[in-house]
Amino acid sequence: MLGGMQDWPLRVMRLIDHAEREHGHREIVSRWADGSTTRTDYAGVARDSRKLAQALERLGVRKGDRVATLAMNHSRHLVSWYGTIGMGGVLHTVNPRLFPEQLIYIFNHAEDKVLFYDHAMTPLVDALKPHLKTVEHYVCFDPPEGDSFESLIAGESGDYRWVEGDEREPCMLCYTSGTTGNPKGVLYEHRSTVIHAMAEVQPDVFDLSRRAVALPIVPMFHAAAWGLPFAAPIAGCKIVFTADYTPKTVCDVLHEEGVTHTAAVPTVWLGLMQYVDQTGSDLGQLKLVTIGGSAAPRAMIEFFQSRGVEVGHAWGMTEMSPIGTTGGRPHDWDDLSFEEKIDLIAKQGRVPFGVEMRIVTDEGAIQPRDGQSSGRLQVRGPWVIQQYFKEERPAVDAENWFDTGDVAVIHPDGTMQITDRAKDVIKSGGEWISSIELENAAMGCPGVAEAAAVGVYHPKWDERPLLLVVRKEGSDVTPDQILDHLTNHVAKWWLPDEILFVDSLPHTATGKLLKTALREEYKDYRLKTAA
Amino acid sequence: MLGGMQDWPLRVMRLIDHAEREHGHREIVSRWADGSTTRTDYAGVARDSRKLAQALERLGVRKGDRVATLAMNHSRHLVSWYGTIGMGGVLHTVNPRLFPEQLIYIFNHAEDKVLFYDHAMTPLVDALKPHLKTVEHYVCFDPPEGDSFESLIAGESGDYRWVEGDEREPCMLCYTSGTTGNPKGVLYEHRSTVIHAMAEVQPDVFDLSRRAVALPIVPMFHAAAWGLPFAAPIAGCKIVFTADYTPKTVCDVLHEEGVTHTAAVPTVWLGLMQYVDQTGSDLGQLKLVTIGGSAAPRAMIEFFQSRGVEVGHAWGMTEMSPIGTTGGRPHDWDDLSFEEKIDLIAKQGRVPFGVEMRIVTDEGAIQPRDGQSSGRLQVRGPWVIQQYFKEERPAVDAENWFDTGDVAVIHPDGTMQITDRAKDVIKSGGEWISSIELENAAMGCPGVAEAAAVGVYHPKWDERPLLLVVRKEGSDVTPDQILDHLTNHVAKWWLPDEILFVDSLPHTATGKLLKTALREEYKDYRLKTAA
Repeated sequence: MLGGMQDWPLRVMRLIDHAEREHGHREIVSRWADGSTTRTDYAGVARDSRKLAQALERLGVRKGDRVATLAMNHSRHLVSWYGTIGMGGVLHTVNPRLFPEQLIYIFNHAEDKVLFYDHAMTPLVDALKPHLKTVEHYVCFDPPEGDSFESLIAGESGDYRWVEGDEREPCMLCYTSGTTGNPKGVLYEHRSTVIHAMAEVQPDVFDLSRRAVALPIVPMFHAAAWGLPFAAPIAGCKIVFTADYTPKTVCDVLHEEGVTHTAAVPTVWLGLMQYVDQTGSDLGQLKLVTIGGSAAPRAMIEFFQSRGVEVGHAWGMTEMSPIGTTGGRPHDWDDLSFEEKIDLIAKQGRVPFGVEMRIVTDEGAIQPRDGQSSGRLQVRGPWVIQQYFKEERPAVDAENWFDTGDVAVIHPDGTMQITDRAKDVIKSGGEWISSIELENAAMGCPGVAEAAAVGVYHPKWDERPLLLVVRKEGSDVTPDQILDHLTNHVAKWWLPDEILFVDSLPHTATGKLLKTALREEYKDYRLKTAA
Repeated sequence: MLGGMQDWPLRVMRLIDHAEREHGHREIVSRWADGSTTRTDYAGVARDSRKLAQALERLGVRKGDRVATLAMNHSRHLVSWYGTIGMGGVLHTVNPRLFPEQLIYIFNHAEDKVLFYDHAMTPLVDALKPHLKTVEHYVCFDPPEGDSFESLIAGESGDYRWVEGDEREPCMLCYTSGTTGNPKGVLYEHRSTVIHAMAEVQPDVFDLSRRAVALPIVPMFHAAAWGLPFAAPIAGCKIVFTADYTPKTVCDVLHEEGVTHTAAVPTVWLGLMQYVDQTGSDLGQLKLVTIGGSAAPRAMIEFFQSRGVEVGHAWGMTEMSPIGTTGGRPHDWDDLSFEEKIDLIAKQGRVPFGVEMRIVTDEGAIQPRDGQSSGRLQVRGPWVIQQYFKEERPAVDAENWFDTGDVAVIHPDGTMQITDRAKDVIKSGGEWISSIELENAAMGCPGVAEAAAVGVYHPKWDERPLLLVVRKEGSDVTPDQILDHLTNHVAKWWLPDEILFVDSLPHTATGKLLKTALREEYKDYRLKTAA
């Protein structure tokens, strides 16, 4: 049939082109680790990205090559993103918090040609250097003695046209830090990144407009700062970066830059809450705070909501670019009581258009959306992984469903609620016990500092819960007291068969409980109830 | 390179699938021509669309066939959209306000197989029928004596899977009503429609969220109701349709259904403004009114803004799906005075991500964005036309720029301002005189009911303006009085060389001045200044 609409590949560089043309003078602010502030704008980032693209070509980087960064959030880091992608490279953000052996594996697996890094990472880079087989150029973003990054691009003209190509070409590589095996790389494509960014600006996701002032506290090495550096140019909002996110700096930046929208993991907000309480400060013009990475505690949600700041509780994964669900308001929001609102926000939210989501049993039966039937959470969509980098087999089933490894329920209104990680769930007599809910309930008991629940072998029930507890300093809380407390919060058959006190619990590099180590340690533990 | 993200074609049916799954019970309300109201929801529309898809297959409609509608806005019309597109057909909305000979041309050119129509259109359909060569089935949406549409789908099971295919396949056909030549068809594709819909929900375009209640007054036969029936399912907002948009009904519906967002041409709002003034009514919960189709008068913008309702002034074309620019707020909005806000809204707004826009001279030189340099407005992007239906040549130049036929300037902040239609501009001594500005200025003169400016031959200046004026009933305004008035509003060299009084001016079927007829009538007119 003759006739139709235009070819216009969904290429990432169109995002910054749009921002340069339509929002060229909108500010991009960087608060550096030394406390200084620099300011550029979308036109400046686009100009410097063209210069960097020229410099990378001069260094011998070619289309499809990987270029790595080890850096916090700032405008030069943003330039390295668009400059690398603009010359056809694949931008690879590396998480400096991983263990050295994981980092070495990742660099060599990605075959990075160039590494851009913050001066503060110099000791780490020096330690890694002897082991990195493919990195040919090391460029410091902010050397105190000179201007390594700035001098790299200083001599370039900026007269450059972005490398063009198919929208399915890769643009970015992010590794996941699993608790088992080697890290795996997720290869974002131009198309997936642009569609994801378009979805993010809508009111029920990040609500980004020209008037917004966005502070992505979530690091750029953490699933592309949840996509904000790609979504912000669509809206033309002001971006505020801070390399330092101690509570005082965050609070200062909120006020000084008029931040309206921000996003970070719960740990950051815990610090800010204490700081605000201690100093009597307020939250400035903050309007929407997106919390993700791990579950937001109820007290945190109440803290913001009671101060007139909306909380958007989000869930996602590196494998999802990373947005899976977000916490936009339901249509009957104004009819809900404060408590009902907190109840709703405490769940993980709903999918935007582009994410398909379902719950299945281990046997593959699709569960109803009744808020009760839990199972494995599966997703698919245009910004969901098909296959890990250099892996030979797809990461999805024949119908493209990706198993997230989370256990969840979906409520009738479409709200999803995570109940556990699939590998941590305790399977007792064919029923599932959520280790997370058990731990959270135990941590509500006075005297308990931290708790971990693991399933151990039981001849009758297959698995039963063993609860490991770290007491608070000076506490002498007893197993019976903990059991009494739990009785009020979980079903009776969820109560742990035994409670053991330990001095500490193992954690991953990103602060999550290392359940694999605990399962290994207690795999031969014999419960007294199993006798 | 191994690895990457999923294939997930941007197909229109994913929009209604999403809404059915995630917002299934969100209401879709129809106010019918007889004053009755019916209610369904996204799940109901999806279910009926599956039934209609089955029925269309039963009628012999095949993939790629065109299915036409002659109808106002209501939920059955919406079902005909998704049902047709869902079975692989191409939905063709026909504008009943066109002249019969244009309608006959359009139906035969489109080769429609089926025609769905409103009972109120029966006389028109009866008159057209003998001339329609390809229509095999006529189905009335709302026959008073029975249920033609309802009975068509009543026997179907609804057990149906949408026809799949490439995202570049066509889904919809809309003809433009030009003032010269035959109407031309714009063939929307699945991909262009989905990307356009995703762009529309963002805060600076239509600002659609779950909490919105959207009333698209703009007819569904008018550039797909500006895309709202595709964007609303993304947001999951409530939709309110009304087949009757007389002022009282619009005002009643605003209040009864809690409408927050609405969109229509200026004529509708003129009627509503008078009604509200006369009855002392208010605008209920209205938050954002989008005005497009032709320029919104300043008084209209003031009317809404002074009542706390934001006006989004939009510009677009059928060839652009149709969104070109919209009136989101600039970042310094709160710093503007009321007058400055009205000044800004009175212009045509800014492009969303996805529209590239430029101004060029007749010689093809790109004009600066200085708010002064006018020229032909050109656009390109993923939802802009490449080629008209069945035309052999592209509608764009070698770089995909589509010439809109409008003359405009772009201000430094990216705000676009239409100054004229290219073919109506008066070229005097190599400079351009805006016929629209001249007419608007003349219509501000007491005693002037309507005015039209056309360029007529002048030996020295090539063209000079001739102003045709219809006096208000009882007025005896003179040419000198009009010239005096104009002197205060336009440059001196823009003043018309002559002013002629006429009894009436010719209009197109959609109410626009028919300049072609005027130019034809006055093409041999000899100005006294040309002697």
